[in-house]
Amino acid sequence: MSSKAVQDFYPDEFAWCYGCGRLNPDGYHLKTVWEGDETVTRFTPRPYHIAIPGYVNGGVLASLIDCHGTGSAAAAAYRAEGREVGDGPAPRYVTASLRVDYLKPTPLGIPLEVRGRIKEMKGRKVVVDAELSAGGEVTVRGEVVAVQMPEHLRPRGE
Amino acid sequence: MSSKAVQDFYPDEFAWCYGCGRLNPDGYHLKTVWEGDETVTRFTPRPYHIAIPGYVNGGVLASLIDCHGTGSAAAAAYRAEGREVGDGPAPRYVTASLRVDYLKPTPLGIPLEVRGRIKEMKGRKVVVDAELSAGGEVTVRGEVVAVQMPEHLRPRGE
Repeated sequence: MSSKAVQDFYPDEFAWCYGCGRLNPDGYHLKTVWEGDETVTRFTPRPYHIAIPGYVNGGVLASLIDCHGTGSAAAAAYRAEGREVGDGPAPRYVTASLRVDYLKPTPLGIPLEVRGRIKEMKGRKVVVDAELSAGGEVTVRGEVVAVQMPEHLRPRGE
Repeated sequence: MSSKAVQDFYPDEFAWCYGCGRLNPDGYHLKTVWEGDETVTRFTPRPYHIAIPGYVNGGVLASLIDCHGTGSAAAAAYRAEGREVGDGPAPRYVTASLRVDYLKPTPLGIPLEVRGRIKEMKGRKVVVDAELSAGGEVTVRGEVVAVQMPEHLRPRGE
């Protein structure tokens, strides 16, 4: 059974991300849920998300890994506090570094699945391992180092 | 003085990339040129390419690094053959791996510049170091391992 999606609980002012903000009308609206001890995001690229004919653009795949990483970090923070996703607002993480290995071309036109595992959690930092698959075959591996959003990035007046 | 843009010389069937394909009506149309011994790509993200308010989405920044890397690899291949960009069709590279370090948030709404250096060139592989700056300040560093497109990815019949 899946949990609720962590991005549905980002505070409104941080829910505009092009990859995963629920309030961005032009974005991808990625949603990250727990399935057991793994986090999962699913997305079907659009026809124009092409790299070379028949395959998905590497930047779009990097975006999936990126937002899945920050979403997974927020989901892990809920768990670390003994909370379920949606039990209060989600903490907001940003990406410190991203590594993406393209193992083979990813076919365009079918749903993609990114599965994440929490590799490390220490202070404000969470490291997430991610595997992206298409039709059950892993085509991309990634690692995201996410850090909890620094206070100085918060809009003034809050 | 800048060279011609390498993406303007990709063969038509490989000019659809979401990041840098000149024929993709929904893409970013990134263009990579030589400036001396560095390669340069410039892009101004759109308002909806937001991460958190005021800053550019990390996946979009990864896309810039990615396509700048494959474009730089193609530009390097021209040079290695003693050709100018546009002197015959451009070789087409794909990304084997991508590493992106987000040093600080990248401001949204101003032109961004990615500068690349060829770090290594060996057989079909080219490694490109990239620095992305906004208003003269480096905010992102990246490394792209690009490989010349394998023959089996070429559409049949060619």
